[in-house]
Amino acid sequence: MALLSVFTPILAVVLCLVIGFVLVKSWDTETTSTSPGKSKGATKGEKRPWVDQDLQDDTEITAKEDDDDADDDWGDSAEEENLTQLSYSPQRYPEETMLQRSKEFYTLMNQRRSVRFISPEPVPREVIDNVIHTAGTAPSGAHTEPWTFVVVSDPDIKHQIRLIVEEEEEMNYHQRMGEKWVQDLAKLRTNWIKEYLDVAPYLILIFKQTYGILPNGKKKTHYYNEISVSISCGILLAALQNVGLVTVTSTPLNCGPKLRLLLKRPANEKLLMLLPVGYPATDATVPDLKRKHLDDILVHV
Amino acid sequence: MALLSVFTPILAVVLCLVIGFVLVKSWDTETTSTSPGKSKGATKGEKRPWVDQDLQDDTEITAKEDDDDADDDWGDSAEEENLTQLSYSPQRYPEETMLQRSKEFYTLMNQRRSVRFISPEPVPREVIDNVIHTAGTAPSGAHTEPWTFVVVSDPDIKHQIRLIVEEEEEMNYHQRMGEKWVQDLAKLRTNWIKEYLDVAPYLILIFKQTYGILPNGKKKTHYYNEISVSISCGILLAALQNVGLVTVTSTPLNCGPKLRLLLKRPANEKLLMLLPVGYPATDATVPDLKRKHLDDILVHV
Repeated sequence: MALLSVFTPILAVVLCLVIGFVLVKSWDTETTSTSPGKSKGATKGEKRPWVDQDLQDDTEITAKEDDDDADDDWGDSAEEENLTQLSYSPQRYPEETMLQRSKEFYTLMNQRRSVRFISPEPVPREVIDNVIHTAGTAPSGAHTEPWTFVVVSDPDIKHQIRLIVEEEEEMNYHQRMGEKWVQDLAKLRTNWIKEYLDVAPYLILIFKQTYGILPNGKKKTHYYNEISVSISCGILLAALQNVGLVTVTSTPLNCGPKLRLLLKRPANEKLLMLLPVGYPATDATVPDLKRKHLDDILVHV
Repeated sequence: MALLSVFTPILAVVLCLVIGFVLVKSWDTETTSTSPGKSKGATKGEKRPWVDQDLQDDTEITAKEDDDDADDDWGDSAEEENLTQLSYSPQRYPEETMLQRSKEFYTLMNQRRSVRFISPEPVPREVIDNVIHTAGTAPSGAHTEPWTFVVVSDPDIKHQIRLIVEEEEEMNYHQRMGEKWVQDLAKLRTNWIKEYLDVAPYLILIFKQTYGILPNGKKKTHYYNEISVSISCGILLAALQNVGLVTVTSTPLNCGPKLRLLLKRPANEKLLMLLPVGYPATDATVPDLKRKHLDDILVHV
């Protein structure tokens, strides 16, 4: 007891230090953990946004300044700077032709709809190859071309894909039903049955490569890979529409890992989209949806 | 001293509790802060990935199950279920025509290049309108059409955009140079000068709407808005190429807030891309880049 009392002042000092440390530490944690929440809140009003707030919901921005290839301008990568420059003079059309072509392309694309009723009829594989070749012409951050298109025509693999997707979908629906007390089971059931995954002659699974491997074995981050692959998908959808094939855009994110393993894709590839592709079924229907008017999406300044 | 020694056991107990608390707290913090790193590390080997790891780099997945519209299949939204179904029978081409069309579209798209040397010649505004109308036909999560295309032709606004973009670019380059001890200032300087922002007859700034406002005033999350708008950009690039106009894809993310305020866009809109658009300059050059072979991007299963 006497010995302890000698150490009492020391204990008191240690205690103060420890309490001080805890206070500082918890303040730190609070600052760090609430900042994303704050930024979400900031979108409520017309406050002057901070740069970081605007970046919060952008996929790959955190590592942005670590690499020479992370230029905003996708063509400006360090690698390109060392390449020979070639003169570029693509075909130029008279104004009237431009107008005509722009109208025709709009008309063609405006006929595109997401179609879930796909015919089992075979489609020439070369057409699919050309469509994917076209998608591969998309621009990409630092010309990384971070996409892999897996075209599945094997009926067994298609069926396994269907089972994986339906299992996940069913779980999603059940979870939601638990939350929302939805009563009409029968009606919702149709939502997780994806017959077209068996029926469509092709399933195109589009993977984004989140990083690449350099010749020295090091990883190379693929900046903007999700945006790049999505742009490529836009061109893919245009190419499908151009040949009279239909699809429905789906992003089965929860099934990504299982589908990646099923298709034996490497760890740097993550599933972004799954497109069942074919001719429309003869009795195909689409919901009577309208698109926004041009004035609602376009602002001239 | 005697009084203190009475409290010594109590002090010792408190000290133990405090130390215990600190240990637990720091463990918590570590777990939280290292988990994103862990998931990145997990991609190194061919480990069986967890679902959550696959979701880490996906923008808007956290809120995914909060809403009826968050279906994986973009056409399956609750709203669409209540719509009339219309029969859908788009144009069907004979196989030979399909093949021909797929080849021609590939050839056209394969001629597209990112071009930074843009002619100041005027371009008919109606062509730009049609191109953007075409981009607006893209599919979107739950048919939210979460895009706004701001077309800037006003020389003053174009110049203000240039100043904002160049200021940010210059800061980016200086930061990198500081880190990497780059010595050749003169060579890098060209990277942040974006003359085309003044010269191009049009700048198209593409905003993603991260949420919408329902009639009852509540916010409605736009799931997959970044992917949807990127797909729409893919179709926009195809439409530009189709009329012989050029652009360079850029994602000036750091300038987003300033450009949003300059263009008076509401708080739910975030800049995704900036495309300077026009005819190519007569002396335009592009780097001698090659695209991947089809076999390197396509896998048949």
